[in-house]
Amino acid sequence: MHTELRAAIVGSTGYGGVELIRLLAAHPRVAVTSVISSSSSGEPIAKGYPHLTEIRTDLLDGVDPGEMRAKADVVFLATPAGVASKLVPALLDEGLKVVDLSGDLRLKSGELYETWYGKPPAEARYLEQAVYGMCELYGEQVRGRELISNPGCYPTATLLGLAPAVAEGWIDPDTIIIDAKSGVSGAGRGANLSTHYAETNENFKAYKVNKHQHIPEIEQTLSQLAGRPIVTTFTTHLVPMTRGIMSTMYARLTEPRAEQELIELYRRYYEGRRFVRIREAGQWPATKEVWGSNYCDIGFAADARTGRLTIVSVIDNLVKGAAGQAVQNLNLAMGWDETLGLDFVPAYP
Amino acid sequence: MHTELRAAIVGSTGYGGVELIRLLAAHPRVAVTSVISSSSSGEPIAKGYPHLTEIRTDLLDGVDPGEMRAKADVVFLATPAGVASKLVPALLDEGLKVVDLSGDLRLKSGELYETWYGKPPAEARYLEQAVYGMCELYGEQVRGRELISNPGCYPTATLLGLAPAVAEGWIDPDTIIIDAKSGVSGAGRGANLSTHYAETNENFKAYKVNKHQHIPEIEQTLSQLAGRPIVTTFTTHLVPMTRGIMSTMYARLTEPRAEQELIELYRRYYEGRRFVRIREAGQWPATKEVWGSNYCDIGFAADARTGRLTIVSVIDNLVKGAAGQAVQNLNLAMGWDETLGLDFVPAYP
Amino acid sequence: MHTELRAAIVGSTGYGGVELIRLLAAHPRVAVTSVISSSSSGEPIAKGYPHLTEIRTDLLDGVDPGEMRAKADVVFLATPAGVASKLVPALLDEGLKVVDLSGDLRLKSGELYETWYGKPPAEARYLEQAVYGMCELYGEQVRGRELISNPGCYPTATLLGLAPAVAEGWIDPDTIIIDAKSGVSGAGRGANLSTHYAETNENFKAYKVNKHQHIPEIEQTLSQLAGRPIVTTFTTHLVPMTRGIMSTMYARLTEPRAEQELIELYRRYYEGRRFVRIREAGQWPATKEVWGSNYCDIGFAADARTGRLTIVSVIDNLVKGAAGQAVQNLNLAMGWDETLGLDFVPAYP
Amino acid sequence: MHTELRAAIVGSTGYGGVELIRLLAAHPRVAVTSVISSSSSGEPIAKGYPHLTEIRTDLLDGVDPGEMRAKADVVFLATPAGVASKLVPALLDEGLKVVDLSGDLRLKSGELYETWYGKPPAEARYLEQAVYGMCELYGEQVRGRELISNPGCYPTATLLGLAPAVAEGWIDPDTIIIDAKSGVSGAGRGANLSTHYAETNENFKAYKVNKHQHIPEIEQTLSQLAGRPIVTTFTTHLVPMTRGIMSTMYARLTEPRAEQELIELYRRYYEGRRFVRIREAGQWPATKEVWGSNYCDIGFAADARTGRLTIVSVIDNLVKGAAGQAVQNLNLAMGWDETLGLDFVPAYP
Repeated sequence: MHTELRAAIVGSTGYGGVELIRLLAAHPRVAVTSVISSSSSGEPIAKGYPHLTEIRTDLLDGVDPGEMRAKADVVFLATPAGVASKLVPALLDEGLKVVDLSGDLRLKSGELYETWYGKPPAEARYLEQAVYGMCELYGEQVRGRELISNPGCYPTATLLGLAPAVAEGWIDPDTIIIDAKSGVSGAGRGANLSTHYAETNENFKAYKVNKHQHIPEIEQTLSQLAGRPIVTTFTTHLVPMTRGIMSTMYARLTEPRAEQELIELYRRYYEGRRFVRIREAGQWPATKEVWGSNYCDIGFAADARTGRLTIVSVIDNLVKGAAGQAVQNLNLAMGWDETLGLDFVPAYP
Repeated sequence: MHTELRAAIVGSTGYGGVELIRLLAAHPRVAVTSVISSSSSGEPIAKGYPHLTEIRTDLLDGVDPGEMRAKADVVFLATPAGVASKLVPALLDEGLKVVDLSGDLRLKSGELYETWYGKPPAEARYLEQAVYGMCELYGEQVRGRELISNPGCYPTATLLGLAPAVAEGWIDPDTIIIDAKSGVSGAGRGANLSTHYAETNENFKAYKVNKHQHIPEIEQTLSQLAGRPIVTTFTTHLVPMTRGIMSTMYARLTEPRAEQELIELYRRYYEGRRFVRIREAGQWPATKEVWGSNYCDIGFAADARTGRLTIVSVIDNLVKGAAGQAVQNLNLAMGWDETLGLDFVPAYP
Repeated sequence: MHTELRAAIVGSTGYGGVELIRLLAAHPRVAVTSVISSSSSGEPIAKGYPHLTEIRTDLLDGVDPGEMRAKADVVFLATPAGVASKLVPALLDEGLKVVDLSGDLRLKSGELYETWYGKPPAEARYLEQAVYGMCELYGEQVRGRELISNPGCYPTATLLGLAPAVAEGWIDPDTIIIDAKSGVSGAGRGANLSTHYAETNENFKAYKVNKHQHIPEIEQTLSQLAGRPIVTTFTTHLVPMTRGIMSTMYARLTEPRAEQELIELYRRYYEGRRFVRIREAGQWPATKEVWGSNYCDIGFAADARTGRLTIVSVIDNLVKGAAGQAVQNLNLAMGWDETLGLDFVPAYP
Repeated sequence: MHTELRAAIVGSTGYGGVELIRLLAAHPRVAVTSVISSSSSGEPIAKGYPHLTEIRTDLLDGVDPGEMRAKADVVFLATPAGVASKLVPALLDEGLKVVDLSGDLRLKSGELYETWYGKPPAEARYLEQAVYGMCELYGEQVRGRELISNPGCYPTATLLGLAPAVAEGWIDPDTIIIDAKSGVSGAGRGANLSTHYAETNENFKAYKVNKHQHIPEIEQTLSQLAGRPIVTTFTTHLVPMTRGIMSTMYARLTEPRAEQELIELYRRYYEGRRFVRIREAGQWPATKEVWGSNYCDIGFAADARTGRLTIVSVIDNLVKGAAGQAVQNLNLAMGWDETLGLDFVPAYP
């Protein structure tokens, strides 16, 4: 197989960008031809990331849509909130395909974006044009698209865990409570007290309770699946580890269900989707079991005593929660097998 | 102040026992005169715990109630489930005061014990005689008692977090969901795959979902506070850290409340109790902030969007969740200030 | 490229074996056709390693050379000391190619093996027949060989760091001191107190000082490079991390050298060897920069004040220190490009 | 015992300062009456350190020698390099006793200070007046002194490990090599890439090889013990843990020695010094075994094969390596028992 597509990565010096470099290096049909960083333009990428020594010898490019067009067919935006909304119009005008890993194009309502992100939203027509690339739910809609909004890390773990039960009406969506936990890489590479090793190691913290910007993103899809507006309770915690997200989710079952029924429902719902793995009854997924991979593993407990369902869902936040799903979206957009370049075994232990 | 009480510790080679040694070394009125281990009897304690080198030079004693009587006035049982139920009668017959850190005497119903622990329960009269030493809830009842059942680690974090809101009827107890997380020391010192460093580090796991033996202990007290039988949903997770428990708790508010009202309710409820600290609105407690100490720190978010209350409560599982509360219980039983020997600053970072 | 070689892995339930599964899954010319475990024969491999769910559905085979012959062309032995010495004769008789990851065939002297391993050695003719597969030093000798002894993890990091300076006589080999540090996965998956999370986390330990069985392996090659018998001082430490080895090495320079001279010597010595990366002056390699990869990164400081050279060398103990180098050895033995299946980017962070 | 001494802490918002607060809270004769921070003056200390909630309710004071005099008898300086050299004259003029935890007064040569610290040194008369408070070596000289320079963390672990063997001439001081490892808290609370959790976790790094500013401090004392100028090779590494330092030290034995002889030499040398614990032959100290305490534990291996001695020494860098030794120095200066307020059991695990 020869390279068919040239890719540029904007935000190459963040964790999402560098993970894209790792994944695309193993992709049989894509070559990364430009790594771009507004802050370190002109420097060798291996200076800030010595693990790339002798693997990538690029100097970092600056942000210039025309130049990107000369070097690339697709652009991945691994940029902070507020950047993509400004860059996207020019990139699309240049005829570039865009996969945006930020939150800028995920919410269909610009108003909601402004409320939760505290920044001006992208123009409405781009919000409309962007397809929300939660691959296992909306993969069909991604095919052939030019502008893809890659989902957030928490929404990915959470929505994959809830979708079948909500869509089938097996749980009452008004009772959903989401208790989410993330490794520290989710906070990005910026140095501050909350990512300081000595403050984070041997520590477990809650943060942004009821205030995380991923809440409207989760509710937007839950509402769509339920067919009516849904609000949820969502808590985020910081785990002393680098990678991994677990969502533990609770809801009232609309009628009693055996765990085996749920397992079968989920396997049916995700049939043919290689990256969702439903666990056997009583076997709980752990974050390390998907480390470095694009898998989302899901387990259940249906509790007859309380009438509640507990769902546990895990992903690697930098892969399925960011760079991996972005590559999967590109595969889907191109009409390729969605596993291309992602078909590897998690590193364990 | 001179030593007034001699203490023996059964199970001195477990994490609970060795933490008792650390805490009682700083207690102004208690001296540990016998450290007891059925498995390592005859060996110097510093052999298995080199951090005690030149601090404690004892040889470990075997388990013998008569010998304990000769050496001690109070016995702490830091033993696995099923041991205390057999030892307690002889110890009480010898006139010894007993603080049991195991689960053997916590449930008033022997039947429930058998269901959740899978072992025969203690005789009913001992279950009845034992006072459940959740100090901030039942401290008055502990005074002068001979047989104290020290609460479990998860129930301590959970019940201190829920009690005021349940007792005052501010939340609907039927809607309570408890998402709990613990450091690895909670699993004890036994070596097995689930405590292996390489399996636990950089990993976050759920375990015993809906099946943890602390569930009936939590429900027993919640039911008492609510005045009717309560069942709850309770999930436990393993965090890659050594010490610390966080309980994140959810429930429907019976009527809208501002966070400040909750803070005031809790401060009132725990007035004069030095080891419960209620945080300011928006400041979430983290486990490291109570590390090595007997504190339980609690924070709140009342969510107008969903009508739900989120409570976050943290303890050090080996201190407030085990050895520290055991010392606090002894203090209360003796009529001393409950902070004696426990009045120190958490180690940070 | 189609599969040309079928591989069996004996010891598939250890960390070395499961890492071979991960790496060979990405190899374009090798297919793993049998995963073998004496202890778990008959069980699905994903039971003990849920990260392999739906990736490998094999039941574990038992150890039977005839059966291996039917299923495989090459056998990887990822077994404890003392197993390979017994298995190898039958495997060779069956015409199988063998890569042994254990220490059984590394020392040319059976007597030394017995002294350091405390077990009877393999027969002398197998010790002689086996080629010591330190790829960057002896790669030429591996080509076409049937029996390859894969080097130990510490010797790999250490010898790659020392070889050029010793071979060229730039350091006095009698003054070499090796201070080595390893992650916990090096101790294997067996559960015991020294790998217990709570004993290892937030802890740094020395162990087996001057007594590690890798000492004679290091000295055997150093002596060969120096042309006379060399003894060294070698200390091992346990780092609270899962993967990674660093060797910090000290020796007296035979004459003053600038760091740049050393960098050039090493680059020349390892020219064309893709997996050794020499760092720029003043840039020290860290274990995370080779995590999950087959790289060995090396840095230097030549100290004019003391006349000593300090060399820092890092590898991933499970990859370059075990399974990765084993695959590299197979590549060399087959006459393939040594990077086949190993040409990926380290996962960072 | 009642409070006899009032203490002020300058630099209360660094890890050294906050550790002083923890330790002095348990001191029977000292009360902390002023916590001082130039950067956060006016703020409640518990804002930046919530673990102090309801324990210390102080507002942070600004730096004002006159005000300190009004509130305190002794001042601890836990400040960055370059601050103490400027503050000390005014503090001494006010009649305050000073314990300086920074490096400003440790080197007798101002020139050396300038070379290694890159800052102007303190005036020569203060360098002369300051006593170097390595308690177990120079404790006698500390008694009654007004200006104490508290040793660095690495020098403490290193010099306590080397002193007896150097002083007695059992090792050749010209052959000393020091391989040191530290937890991340040694880097202070400042947020930067090298203390970022995701960069540090599951990572082991070397840094400042041959360039650490503690080198001249170590050499100054070694030279004094050896009676002639000594230079050493000293490497520092960053361990993924919060607290703890290990120094692994190597030197040639001047004549063959059994380990037991060394143990006896060291026990004799440190007789009566409670905070140095010499381990039995074959038992290696680990950092967790001194965690949170003022102990320095030391072990040995004398290697007949190489004629070299290996010494392993561990401390808690924030206690014996900083705040704990500072309190010990105050005790010695006051003529009190050196263990006052420091006589507790390490927290384990």
